Amino acid sequence: MVFPPLKNDLLLRAARREPTERTPVWIMRQAGRYLPEYRALRAEDEFFTVVRTPELAAEVTLQPLARFPLDAAIIFSDILVVPQAMGLEVQMVKGKGPHFPRPLGAPEDLARLRTPDIASDLGYVFEALTLTRQQLDGRAPLIGFCGAPWTLMAYMIEGGGSKTFSRSKTWLFRYPEASHTLLGRITDVLIEYLVAQVEAGAQALQVFDSWAGLLSPEAFEVFALPYLRRIAAEVGAHKPDVPKIVFARGAHYALEALAESGYEVIGLDWTMDPKEARRRTGGRVTLQGNLDPATLYAPPEVIREEVKKMLAAFGPQGHIANLGHGIHPDHDPEHARAFIEAVQEISGGDA
Amino acid sequence: MVFPPLKNDLLLRAARREPTERTPVWIMRQAGRYLPEYRALRAEDEFFTVVRTPELAAEVTLQPLARFPLDAAIIFSDILVVPQAMGLEVQMVKGKGPHFPRPLGAPEDLARLRTPDIASDLGYVFEALTLTRQQLDGRAPLIGFCGAPWTLMAYMIEGGGSKTFSRSKTWLFRYPEASHTLLGRITDVLIEYLVAQVEAGAQALQVFDSWAGLLSPEAFEVFALPYLRRIAAEVGAHKPDVPKIVFARGAHYALEALAESGYEVIGLDWTMDPKEARRRTGGRVTLQGNLDPATLYAPPEVIREEVKKMLAAFGPQGHIANLGHGIHPDHDPEHARAFIEAVQEISGGDA
Repeated sequence: MVFPPLKNDLLLRAARREPTERTPVWIMRQAGRYLPEYRALRAEDEFFTVVRTPELAAEVTLQPLARFPLDAAIIFSDILVVPQAMGLEVQMVKGKGPHFPRPLGAPEDLARLRTPDIASDLGYVFEALTLTRQQLDGRAPLIGFCGAPWTLMAYMIEGGGSKTFSRSKTWLFRYPEASHTLLGRITDVLIEYLVAQVEAGAQALQVFDSWAGLLSPEAFEVFALPYLRRIAAEVGAHKPDVPKIVFARGAHYALEALAESGYEVIGLDWTMDPKEARRRTGGRVTLQGNLDPATLYAPPEVIREEVKKMLAAFGPQGHIANLGHGIHPDHDPEHARAFIEAVQEISGGDA
Repeated sequence: MVFPPLKNDLLLRAARREPTERTPVWIMRQAGRYLPEYRALRAEDEFFTVVRTPELAAEVTLQPLARFPLDAAIIFSDILVVPQAMGLEVQMVKGKGPHFPRPLGAPEDLARLRTPDIASDLGYVFEALTLTRQQLDGRAPLIGFCGAPWTLMAYMIEGGGSKTFSRSKTWLFRYPEASHTLLGRITDVLIEYLVAQVEAGAQALQVFDSWAGLLSPEAFEVFALPYLRRIAAEVGAHKPDVPKIVFARGAHYALEALAESGYEVIGLDWTMDPKEARRRTGGRVTLQGNLDPATLYAPPEVIREEVKKMLAAFGPQGHIANLGHGIHPDHDPEHARAFIEAVQEISGGDA
């Protein structure tokens, strides 16, 4: 496919640890409920309708870029499209989050999973990526993404969010073999899915291991890390030029291992000290993050001060600025702007 | 007060880093909903009625000790008795948790807080401790506890549990001075409260900073650590022989600082690697924890294997075995027994 030339490759260069004239910045969940224009569109359509309609997904993806001078777009989609493609029904319940009417209960339920035909079952994601990449017109690179195997497994067994994720963690202790079977099957799908996202237009990829922090260091090493590594290796073999970001929220204990796992960029949540993270990763990877999203409740001048401290702690190179988790639905868009502009002005020396 | 002589001082010796013939063990929330005898009692009484009735609190505290050979009792109470004593109403809503009908909204609401008369406002806790200590008859030491200043502040502003604790974190960024005023007032109360708990019979103290993990390392250093330190220093000055445990859940980044903060014991959640924690604390403190509570969903033989690994990682001295968080309401009491007995048998060389 031929796409418009990229005019802002800051994020891609930072991901490759090439010098950048300033720090690139984007925001996890930058296309979302905190934007009135998103809420206006969602008032008419269900969440998964937006996800499955390439024109709507592209429109929502581009909304934050129309407002803010962001250095990346991230396709509007959901990590749970993969469990859907594997045969599980997923509903998005207002004010409650995702809900699986029939989650996986016991190992014999693995028989209920199907092997998806990626091109047709997830074709709407690829169409959305291609359309967005066209409409983006090279203003910034387009990020594709997926959920990590452990995080998807957790949802598929738990059937939704949970305080303790007892059911999915019970699998790890009670059915370790079935857990590995499930994780392996999810991983196979994800590899194909990410490669196809690149072919459809994604210029960088992020793997969200949102529930990594539920695992002990040992459980992460056994049930999460090998699959994350396999994704990096196999996607990397097919698409060596596309940088891969891993965001294993809460896996503070695994930073060294993640830095050796084949991802060019490690996303940090806001509990990670940037200097300590630099020391522990020894300059081998680019770091992404990690301002506490709650900082955006502060007045813009406080946001600016906090950004200044964050940038100083990460240093001017090998850093992609972001929040340490997704922006909250009740955040003021003007405070998101304060964050983005502060990164660009301060790191660019205009401050 | 004269109490029956202590026949099992393993926990106290371990806390002082004196040699112990085996590793002592207790379980966070060991008196609680996973026990049928607790549910039977609670069927008749409201949560805070149990907390406020010394005979019932003592009965519930001793329930797990009647079943299991535990090395400590912990008084049945709640960290929110302190906000109550400071003038805020707190209800316990079934299946939902604590609820404050009128939480603190803005700094001017600090005027609504009163300075409690500890002896009378929290007299029921002291009576419960004294009664329990008598009935415990020296079988194991009795632990008193409180919530840490930041954790109590978070509840007082949030009004209950929350996914992001946005309101309380907003205070830190928007009203830092009022936050320090509030934290200081809570700390004053806690110091007096803990000292009085010792006078009433508590033989060790635990401070629960349950929401520490919501804070960035910098916010923890500014808004949590100074108050934790002050508690340790002032309670320690009054009661130098009573070991103090701090459990700052999720504050993985603060382990070194906590090891220098005046507490004899640092509680670890299950995301902390025991060997790494030993290295980082350099043998200066005793460590408590930290089996993933979800391990108790596994069959007893798996629990035993996991305990064996945990004990090997912590080593035989300077360790108090526990879960890395409270036991879950749906855990099988017999699996709690498997945990307790595995610790005692394996560390005692009977395995």
